[in-house]
Order: sequence, then C-alpha cells, then structure tokens
Amino acid sequence: MTELKNDRFLKALLREPVDMTPVWMMRQAGRYLPEYRATRARAGDFLTLCKTPELATEVTLQPLERFPLDAAILFSDILTVPDAMGLGLYFAEGEGPNFERPVRNQADIDKLPIPDPEQELRYVMDGVRMIRAALDGRVPLIGFSGSPWTLATYMVEGGTSKDFARVKGMLFDQPQAMHALLEKVSSTVTAYLNAQIAAGAQAVMVFDTWGGALTSRDYREFSLAYMQRIVEGLSRQHEGQRVPVILFTKGGALWLEAMADTGCDALGLDWTSDIGAARTQVGDRVALQGNMDPAVLYASPERIHAEVATILESYGAGSGHVFNLGHGIHPQIAPEHAAAFVEAVHTLSTPYHR
Amino acid sequence: MTELKNDRFLKALLREPVDMTPVWMMRQAGRYLPEYRATRARAGDFLTLCKTPELATEVTLQPLERFPLDAAILFSDILTVPDAMGLGLYFAEGEGPNFERPVRNQADIDKLPIPDPEQELRYVMDGVRMIRAALDGRVPLIGFSGSPWTLATYMVEGGTSKDFARVKGMLFDQPQAMHALLEKVSSTVTAYLNAQIAAGAQAVMVFDTWGGALTSRDYREFSLAYMQRIVEGLSRQHEGQRVPVILFTKGGALWLEAMADTGCDALGLDWTSDIGAARTQVGDRVALQGNMDPAVLYASPERIHAEVATILESYGAGSGHVFNLGHGIHPQIAPEHAAAFVEAVHTLSTPYHR
Repeated sequence: MTELKNDRFLKALLREPVDMTPVWMMRQAGRYLPEYRATRARAGDFLTLCKTPELATEVTLQPLERFPLDAAILFSDILTVPDAMGLGLYFAEGEGPNFERPVRNQADIDKLPIPDPEQELRYVMDGVRMIRAALDGRVPLIGFSGSPWTLATYMVEGGTSKDFARVKGMLFDQPQAMHALLEKVSSTVTAYLNAQIAAGAQAVMVFDTWGGALTSRDYREFSLAYMQRIVEGLSRQHEGQRVPVILFTKGGALWLEAMADTGCDALGLDWTSDIGAARTQVGDRVALQGNMDPAVLYASPERIHAEVATILESYGAGSGHVFNLGHGIHPQIAPEHAAAFVEAVHTLSTPYHR
Repeated sequence: MTELKNDRFLKALLREPVDMTPVWMMRQAGRYLPEYRATRARAGDFLTLCKTPELATEVTLQPLERFPLDAAILFSDILTVPDAMGLGLYFAEGEGPNFERPVRNQADIDKLPIPDPEQELRYVMDGVRMIRAALDGRVPLIGFSGSPWTLATYMVEGGTSKDFARVKGMLFDQPQAMHALLEKVSSTVTAYLNAQIAAGAQAVMVFDTWGGALTSRDYREFSLAYMQRIVEGLSRQHEGQRVPVILFTKGGALWLEAMADTGCDALGLDWTSDIGAARTQVGDRVALQGNMDPAVLYASPERIHAEVATILESYGAGSGHVFNLGHGIHPQIAPEHAAAFVEAVHTLSTPYHR
C-alpha cells in the first residue's frame, strides 16, 4: 500500500481537521480540456474511451497535471451499468446515449441479469487498479455510480428524456414493476461500488441526476429508499481505512435532512442551496460537498474569487466541507478559469481552518 | 359588465369560502387537444395563431367546451413581449423559439424600447377583449406574462438554452448591464399586464420558468426583486373587483416564504413541493395553486383520482387552494385523462369545503 500524500479530501468528508478546504470538480476530466479532446479523438469514440483502462487512466490524471486538485475521480459513464445488464448502450453521432433494448414491462425486468462487476464490468475495475497505481498515493481516487432511480429512467426511456413519460407512466401505473426494477438495479449498483472499493476506490459517490424530477413522496419511495439500501450494503472499511460515501441528488435541496438520515458520510449540493443554511439543517450528521454554480466559471477570475469567498463564508469555520461545483464543469469553460477556481479555494479557505 | 357565473377561482385566490376546489391546467389550450391541432394547422404556424385574436379566442375556449374548468387563460406566448421590444421572434421548423436580434451588451440594452401594449401588443389586448366577450361571464379570464428574469434569459441567449452560458456570463460579469435589462423588461411587463387588466383580464400570473436555475442569492437579486416590482406596479382593482396576482417560479420550492412576502395573492407550486408543508410555510399570507406532477396524467384514471385525493388531503380543509398541474400539460396526454383529473378535483374536494 502506497501512503496517501494528500488526505485532505477524505478527512473533510469525515469532518476531521484539515489545513485548507479540499477541492475537486465534477467532470474535471472532460471536454473543457484540450488534452482530453485529443485522447478522445485518439480513442475514436466515447465508449471506447470508457472501456479502455489505459485511456480512462490517462484522462483521469489529466486535470491533476494542470491543477492542484485534492481528489481524482474515475473516468467512466453511469450508463456502463445498464449496458452490463444487457441493454446495449450506444451513442449515435450528435445525440445523447441510447439503449438498443430498453426495459418496458415486468417481463423485461424479470430477464435482467445482475452482472458480476469483475466480469461484465471488468474494464472499470481494471481502470480503478491502473489509476490507483498511476496516482501512486498523490490524491485519493473517487469511485461512482448512477443512482438506481437515475439509471432506471434511462433504462425505461431508452435514452435521455425531457418529460419522463415512460418511466413515470411505469412509476404511477405499475409501481410493483418499478420497485422490481429498482431492486435489481440497487443490487447491481451495490455490487458494482463494492467491487470498485475492493479494486482501490477510496471514496464513492452516488449520482442521482433525476431524483429532482420527482414529487417529495415519490423521491423518498423511488429514489432515496434505494440509495439508502446501497449505503447500507457498502463496504465502508477497506485496508484499514474508512471509505466515505457521498450522495448527490441534483434538485434535491428540499430533501437534505432525509438524505442525511441514510447514514451516508456526505451530501453533494447543487448550486440552488445556500450551503450555510444546508449546514444548519444537517448539523454534524454529514459533510457537505459543493456548491458553486458551474456558470460562474464563464466569468472573470476576479468574479470567480468573489463567489468562492461568498461560499466559504456561508459555510463558515471548521472542517466538513469539500469544495466543488454544483454540477459538472461545462465543456466551453477556459481551463485558466478552472485554475483560478481551484487556486481561490485553497488560498481563501486557509483562515477558516486555523 | 356581464356578471361572473363561476367565481370559484377568484374566491380561492383571495382565500374566501368556495363550494369545491377550483381547477384549471397550465397549457390547457394546447397540443394534447385535437381541436387545437386543427386550429393551429389552419393558422399555418404558431406565431400567426398567437397574433390573430380570432384564432387565439377560439383555442382559449376549446378546453372549456370539453371540461368544467374554473378559469380560462389567454392563449399567447411569453416571448411576444421581447418580440414587441424589437428582437424579432421566429420559430424555425422543429426548433424552439429564436430571436433575430438577441441582446448581448449594454449598447443593445440602451437601444431597447419600452413598447406601448396597445400598439405593439395590440393583438394581445384585442384577444383579451374578444375572449372576455366570448366567455360572457362563464369563468374568469387569466392574463399572464413571463417574469423579467425568464424573458431576459431568452433575450440574451437568443432562444432556449441548456446551460445559460451567455445570460449567466452577463449576470456574473456585468451585473449592472443585467440589472439595466431587467429594469426595462420589468417596466414593459408591468405596463403589459396592466393593459391586459384594463382590457379585461380578471387575474394575472407571472411565469418564472428559469428562476430555479439560479442560486438562492441570485434568485432574490435577479428574479424575485423584479417580480416584486411588478406586483407593486399592478392595478390590483378593476371595475370594482380585486385582480389577484399569482407568482410561479418553477424549481422555486426553496423560496416560497420570500415569494409570499412580495405582496402577491397566490403562489404557483411545481410538483416537487409538498402542498401541505408549503401551506404551513406561507401561512395565511397567500393562496396556493398546484401542484400535481403533469406526468400523473399518463397513468390510469384510477391512479389520477388517487393522486388528486393525496394532494387535497395534504392541503387540508378550507379555501385558498386552486388545483392545477405543477407545470403545463404534456402534448401526448389523452384528453380523457385530463377529463378524469378535472372531475376528480371537483368531486373529491367537496368534503373539504363543508
């Protein structure tokens, strides 16, 4: 085991003292970086990039060469999981993701296998092992998965959706079928994240991109309940270290207290929440990760500094805050603006940790 | 003045006793109705439909022929306002709205006129007068406008946007320019809604479709503050009747108390709020309008009834609730399901008003 040289991220997730607020960015290995676009062009297509551990390792490390980030996140896509369940993921040119065999009824659900992560998703685990070796203890590696509800929306719709007509039709009219699907996906995600932890992921994050499209009641029943099952089923210790779990529901600002009650270690916040108010709500139950509007990165470095300062002040003194954007960095952002953001977090946060 | 035969909607907005909960649907005159599609086909294109008072009157009344709705809403589009400010609205085939001359800087903002609603938007006022005559007191007529922030997003982006890069760039980097734009749009909207009231609109609603894309701080400064100015500038009495004002921010569930403090009469709720919890929050300051997930209408009539019952129970006894969907009815919904919804509200709400 290589010793971890920078454990600021893991300590903040466990609300232990740190010297400055750790920072990383959702989609930090992504299209805003010219070196990412070069590797992607070399790969030929997005899925090949995801499915080739050497290339996934290369792009995972790219942002760390540019910016003093406090964590790396596995380069992958949430839809590799339904792909491994037999749905046949493909990306048509200029379109979002699509599935060849979407899930439309109970019979489709009954047929779904629960994949063995070291078989059907072996390329992800190989990626995790390879990235850990390449990181050589520089910063911790975050593993991740989509939430069961979020994965189910793609599986039932067959791709991205604006109005969730099919998946909500199933939720409202065939709630038993919906629950059967979510149970299978939850079992798959739990095994998938545990395999990532066994392969070397030092923290894991569950991305619930579409939980915010539900009513409060339905969110609890169809999204949060299944994230809770995952939290309960995860290996929270590995090689003598605590493996923190972060839950993130985009548009979930109304439900932070219920999310904190799942037993997770931290909540991701989108930018609609005031992080100070969120801290008051969740108390010392969980750490908070977030929450600058990614669109602030279009503005000048001076304006970026000012926004970072406002968020740090809102959170206040003490540990328990991992700085991040409230959603993924946009592809049009200039890397210099991302650099100004990371630098501002480290510089401006030091006084809050004395 | 024709006497109003059904004033349930206006009474509920003013929290006065009613015999049953009034109901209407956002986008009730819309593509889910075959008779709407026929009129639209006859008009040739969407803008002609909006700009021809006879056709706008025809489609406004169509849903009332099918369902015992408690209000009519002017058929129009929020983007007629920036069009009247000289931006040149057009709809390219299969695309959303676009502007020929988007607003990109202070010089563009300085050039913007504040249109005279009885000149540049005369066709809307003629529509209001014609609809009032055609309604003949059957139900009240709702006038509406987009919120200043929502209109500004379209004006700066030049059309719909996924990430609001340009308008948020302006907000963060040129806040003075953003405020100058919002001031002009607010003056325009205030005059526009007052003209609708003078022409016969018996209640008005401000649609803030994109306020939910902002941080809490920015929502207050760039969206809510301008809606408040509008509320303060409106003619709240016309022909001896109170003209209620409804504010609706999609994704605004976090900010209901601040919205209630503007002095409006009612808040529209999207479906993420629990309406009972919202009622507790706002107390007796405002009425509430909402808030069934429009996707429930994909489900069976039995399931629609069950969801209506849940929302009525959550709101509880007494007046102050106008039933509606949490957003516009989807174009794929069967009209029979809309009928089941309207019927369920009237039937199931009666016990709550004894």
